[in-house]
Amino acid sequence: MTVEPIRWSEGGLHIIDQTRLPLEYREIELKTLDAVWEAIKMLRVRGAPAIGICAAFGVLVAVKEQHPSDAGAMRRRVAEAAGYLATSRPTAVNLFWALDRMKRAAEGVDGAAGAEALWRRLESEAVEICEDDKARCRAIGQHGAPLIRDGYGVLTHCNAGALATGAYGTALAVMYSAQEAGTSFRVFADETRPLLQGARLTAWELTRAGIDVTLICDNTAAQVMREGRIQVVVVGADRIAANGDTANKIGTYNVALIAKAHGVPFYVAAPLSTFDRSLPSGESIPIEERDPGEVTEGFGRRTAPEGVQVYSPAFDVTPAPLIAGIITERGILKAPYDRSIAEAFGKAPST
Amino acid sequence: MTVEPIRWSEGGLHIIDQTRLPLEYREIELKTLDAVWEAIKMLRVRGAPAIGICAAFGVLVAVKEQHPSDAGAMRRRVAEAAGYLATSRPTAVNLFWALDRMKRAAEGVDGAAGAEALWRRLESEAVEICEDDKARCRAIGQHGAPLIRDGYGVLTHCNAGALATGAYGTALAVMYSAQEAGTSFRVFADETRPLLQGARLTAWELTRAGIDVTLICDNTAAQVMREGRIQVVVVGADRIAANGDTANKIGTYNVALIAKAHGVPFYVAAPLSTFDRSLPSGESIPIEERDPGEVTEGFGRRTAPEGVQVYSPAFDVTPAPLIAGIITERGILKAPYDRSIAEAFGKAPST
Repeated sequence: MTVEPIRWSEGGLHIIDQTRLPLEYREIELKTLDAVWEAIKMLRVRGAPAIGICAAFGVLVAVKEQHPSDAGAMRRRVAEAAGYLATSRPTAVNLFWALDRMKRAAEGVDGAAGAEALWRRLESEAVEICEDDKARCRAIGQHGAPLIRDGYGVLTHCNAGALATGAYGTALAVMYSAQEAGTSFRVFADETRPLLQGARLTAWELTRAGIDVTLICDNTAAQVMREGRIQVVVVGADRIAANGDTANKIGTYNVALIAKAHGVPFYVAAPLSTFDRSLPSGESIPIEERDPGEVTEGFGRRTAPEGVQVYSPAFDVTPAPLIAGIITERGILKAPYDRSIAEAFGKAPST
Repeated sequence: MTVEPIRWSEGGLHIIDQTRLPLEYREIELKTLDAVWEAIKMLRVRGAPAIGICAAFGVLVAVKEQHPSDAGAMRRRVAEAAGYLATSRPTAVNLFWALDRMKRAAEGVDGAAGAEALWRRLESEAVEICEDDKARCRAIGQHGAPLIRDGYGVLTHCNAGALATGAYGTALAVMYSAQEAGTSFRVFADETRPLLQGARLTAWELTRAGIDVTLICDNTAAQVMREGRIQVVVVGADRIAANGDTANKIGTYNVALIAKAHGVPFYVAAPLSTFDRSLPSGESIPIEERDPGEVTEGFGRRTAPEGVQVYSPAFDVTPAPLIAGIITERGILKAPYDRSIAEAFGKAPST
């Protein structure tokens, strides 16, 4: 088992405080609704699936904190907690999805049932959200593992790892599964400016799992490919349009272009919940801008002139023709993506 | 006139301390041979041409410091100072070239001449090294300026600016000349990991000159091109082989590839002194590795796990076919480069 960023154990919510990585590994218990909200807001937990899982358990924390006297009070507390947690990070789609599941679970229990039955239903829903995510990640890893062969160099960008999910991760799940299969390979991790998730989180996760990882600056990936040291690229995704265009952390499109120039296949790993089939193409995915301070003083020290203009989009869109395949829990989707994506959903009516 | 990183005035050597940029603009006077050595070693002056100029004036500082009693003692001091300064940064080729010029100047003065005549010869040699560099940079700017048209977005990488030369710079000279010509354009500066010369120096220089500059992370350049905001790329060079293959700061090759993918012309700006015609191609240019600490704790704070492997080459090689032209003081060289480079040198027997 890989690292698990979120654990529900003995009725308490425990998370790895990711803001302290890689210097310090610290598990903290979130004992109040406010503490859960703060942990999501301050990126102690990050990665869309992990945020959703944390919020689901956060509803349980909110209920326990208040000790509601009956099922009606408990239902009101669930609605209140869900409404509050939804304000922690308004852009993460999995947050709303998980909170909706918790609200529906509360509403789905017979009105005559007691507080204890309602609690059991809520707890099992949150656990299922978490376990379901782990199972999807595991399946992604198993479908993708054969893409990594003995002696390969694998490039990844940002952190699409266990830390971003319930466990295993998406892109990194492929590497964990390859490791389990006994494949010998080496990973190159882009440090991923501005927030250095590659340096802080991916390098940490892979080192901890005993996978051979080498950290590089983002601008070095092309040189590493030119040296013939990369045979496959695997990255995660934030949102995938109906035609396969993929939004992911800024710099992913750059990696896709240089992989193409070197004939290196570029794969995206993501569960079906990452697909947004309401968008016909990546052109309709909005590009958000980040705080310039992340670029000019992201390391506790100012490294650019005062007042300089900064352009810092949070993500970019990789056009589908640059993507060799999308590794999902239902197998590897191939071009033409509009058809393969539609088919994957056709086979998965419950998603 | 742009910023001048090195000034010889009233018999004293004054430099801008580049380690304090962009937070603080401070000119310091280097009054001893040791101070000059330390300034080069500690990157208070950096950029190959600037290092050569600083070392030439450093020989004068060493002579003044000692007050040699006659021409013979002065010659010995010149040889001693040149030998010592050559140990400050053993890889910068312009350092040795400039020190050799100073030694030859000392030896070229008639043995019967007095100390005062020898001093005048040394001072005029150092001033000529500096003025010659400024003139070459100025000519590069004038040849390259027409490549930038009204409304263009210009991308550059690292700092090939006034701060790296006597004045004007190489790649940035093109921008300064375009500005003088009244052209309206916008620059995007890659921050240039690991040492952030783009953020610290290029953004500072261009802001100070009143040129519209926007700072981006290196991994964002492809997205900016995709948005149609870049019409031309201009970068500097560390060494250019006889076939046009160009070694420059790590990440330059990445920029060349993404420029190609977007149909954006990619230009190199460099004086003929940057060409190494003894190398038939870029394959024979050695790739030096930098200190991993620049990647893992380059901002005063550790940002990667202890003991993680790091690959940090100092530069990469851009193959000549990716280069639209090489802007030199003798005009813009075009493919086939083996021929155009040989012709440029044929027309410049003094170089």
